[in-house]
Amino acid sequence: MIIGSKFELNLPAKVIFECGSRSQLPGIINYFGSRALIVHSKTHPLVPGILEYLGSTGIEIIPLGVSGEPTTKVISELLTETFGARIDCVLAIGGGSVVDTGKALSALLTNPGDLMDYLEIVGKGLPLRNSPTPFIAVPTTSGTGSEVTKNAVLGVPDVRIKVSLRSPMMIPRVALIDPELAVSMPAAVTASTGMDAIVQLIEPFVSIKSNSFTDAICRQGLKAASGSIHIAYHDPDDLNARVAMSFASLCGGLALANAGLGAVHGFAGVIGGMYAIPHGTVCAALLAAVLQTNNKALIARQPNNPVIQKFSELAGILLNTDHSELSESVSWAREKCEEFGIPKLSDLGVKRNEFDEICEKSAASSSMKGNPITLDLSELKEILQLSY
Amino acid sequence: MIIGSKFELNLPAKVIFECGSRSQLPGIINYFGSRALIVHSKTHPLVPGILEYLGSTGIEIIPLGVSGEPTTKVISELLTETFGARIDCVLAIGGGSVVDTGKALSALLTNPGDLMDYLEIVGKGLPLRNSPTPFIAVPTTSGTGSEVTKNAVLGVPDVRIKVSLRSPMMIPRVALIDPELAVSMPAAVTASTGMDAIVQLIEPFVSIKSNSFTDAICRQGLKAASGSIHIAYHDPDDLNARVAMSFASLCGGLALANAGLGAVHGFAGVIGGMYAIPHGTVCAALLAAVLQTNNKALIARQPNNPVIQKFSELAGILLNTDHSELSESVSWAREKCEEFGIPKLSDLGVKRNEFDEICEKSAASSSMKGNPITLDLSELKEILQLSY
Repeated sequence: MIIGSKFELNLPAKVIFECGSRSQLPGIINYFGSRALIVHSKTHPLVPGILEYLGSTGIEIIPLGVSGEPTTKVISELLTETFGARIDCVLAIGGGSVVDTGKALSALLTNPGDLMDYLEIVGKGLPLRNSPTPFIAVPTTSGTGSEVTKNAVLGVPDVRIKVSLRSPMMIPRVALIDPELAVSMPAAVTASTGMDAIVQLIEPFVSIKSNSFTDAICRQGLKAASGSIHIAYHDPDDLNARVAMSFASLCGGLALANAGLGAVHGFAGVIGGMYAIPHGTVCAALLAAVLQTNNKALIARQPNNPVIQKFSELAGILLNTDHSELSESVSWAREKCEEFGIPKLSDLGVKRNEFDEICEKSAASSSMKGNPITLDLSELKEILQLSY
Repeated sequence: MIIGSKFELNLPAKVIFECGSRSQLPGIINYFGSRALIVHSKTHPLVPGILEYLGSTGIEIIPLGVSGEPTTKVISELLTETFGARIDCVLAIGGGSVVDTGKALSALLTNPGDLMDYLEIVGKGLPLRNSPTPFIAVPTTSGTGSEVTKNAVLGVPDVRIKVSLRSPMMIPRVALIDPELAVSMPAAVTASTGMDAIVQLIEPFVSIKSNSFTDAICRQGLKAASGSIHIAYHDPDDLNARVAMSFASLCGGLALANAGLGAVHGFAGVIGGMYAIPHGTVCAALLAAVLQTNNKALIARQPNNPVIQKFSELAGILLNTDHSELSESVSWAREKCEEFGIPKLSDLGVKRNEFDEICEKSAASSSMKGNPITLDLSELKEILQLSY
């Protein structure tokens, strides 16, 4: 059988990708009804105008400004706050945290019981019974791809971990991507979310769950991102670069939702749960070491694994060349982190005496299951040391 | 702005692609309810066993065997036949005609009034008001991609034309692609449906509505198809080739639904309405001449149009080489038709004295709007002459 010739795809019903497409929001909301819960960033400069515009078209809006990465506590409080309100659809405008907040709320508004009933790992992990309230995702960063994924990442502060509320039914009904909304991102956020997008294209591309369909999307997204991330970082107003990064983020979301991830994200969920570090920053800080350790492990233990050819192709795409060595993707990742001022894990406050705990938790994470080769605890620890 | 950086995607919620995946059908049907209208091929050797299997799991099935390409008359009769029955979902197992029959029925079961109210060109073209009955598509040929498209092609015998019932809501809820179901296709059907799949990857790739997302899917599908169609034709039991062609067909469906088509399909709808010729055969018979005429028109009138680069890339993909001339895709298409015994339009019974009518109707068709350059009537006529 051909590699990747067996797969299942869960896709958003509609994706709108266009500069200025935020003007289409009233029509989209009206398709679902007249009352919309709007979960929004408190800081994005264009959000107040969008809220005002939606209100002026006669839509009854319930605005809900949120900040920070969502936790189980925050979601439970927001659910109480919106209890009993008639809501025809939920719209989220913001970065990955805002979109995940809206996504979790839309799922829980229609599924009675406690959040813990449905949460993986720390909860009962029961499947959602009912379709979520129709959910519209409007990302303002270019990284998480959450606008097309089936999970919402929530922090659980008590146990210092991040886990997912996950269901194919949670894929947004409409993903509206307006690259103009990404222009106001500060350079550091452009860098960390952009590197997250790239990791979300690399890991599904070499995942054991990769398939021909996600491969095609990953290649296209990687070409767009590797040629544009530095432009978006150094010249924030370059709209072509924003378009390319928004496209890469969309591709990354579609790819990870349908081919899984790998060791970078296996670690990132755990580290992000233990330390208050932005997700994209953790991913960027780990990428070079994960590529290096995966390459080394594959060559040593599975020299005939066809994924080695994909790692080679990956290096070629990142460096935009036909001929490249596996190691060149490692140096590419290291150079990008230097160029964008991504700190090392040590500078991010990760404690060396927690390495063992991080490795054990990461080995059990759902993202780690996609890694192209099973890494042992000493290899996982090596990744942390290389990134320190 | 970057080419193809503005797009809208309408996608199926779930795609299952796996040999043997027909065994998952009971679970999928049960997700929607317990009573399923099964629109099925009357001739496929595996269909009786599938019906029996579904019945044995306790699902109440209403089998509806159909044959031939659907017409407005057939659909109206089938609607009368199923009137008043409680149907939780519609499942179609068969080639493009069977899938389109099921798709049209699922849409009309929930939308009252006359078929003509909703039909484009010859009808009122009103948008569907209600979501169709959940529709599951299981293709048994590898060509139409109808399992993921938003339209059903219906013949209108009175006026000798084929038109579409079309709505984003008509995209099947689940597309289940089991390449084993394609093994029993006769060689001639493998050839004509396979060439249709290839045309449905070529036309969206060079369409004026192409975008970065559909481009990626087209490239992957074209690589799969161009390397496998001859194997599937000459060695019908080669399952790898069937898998590749089923994948290409899926990609073609996703691409055409989101980037449109071109002159081949502009003609094929018209010719298929006037003469009883299988759709894939018409497409294959026209491909070489359309490529040749498009290339010539572009070089003469729009020598700087970036789509010329895509035609060049296309030739490289079809011939599996880095360097190729535009003209090589034309000869590739001509050679495939010879290899597969695809007749010329003259041998298919198309009458030369109807060329003017064919050209005028084709120029007004919806597919023609995607063609990379507007062809005048003399160019359209030249295509017919070259294919005669």
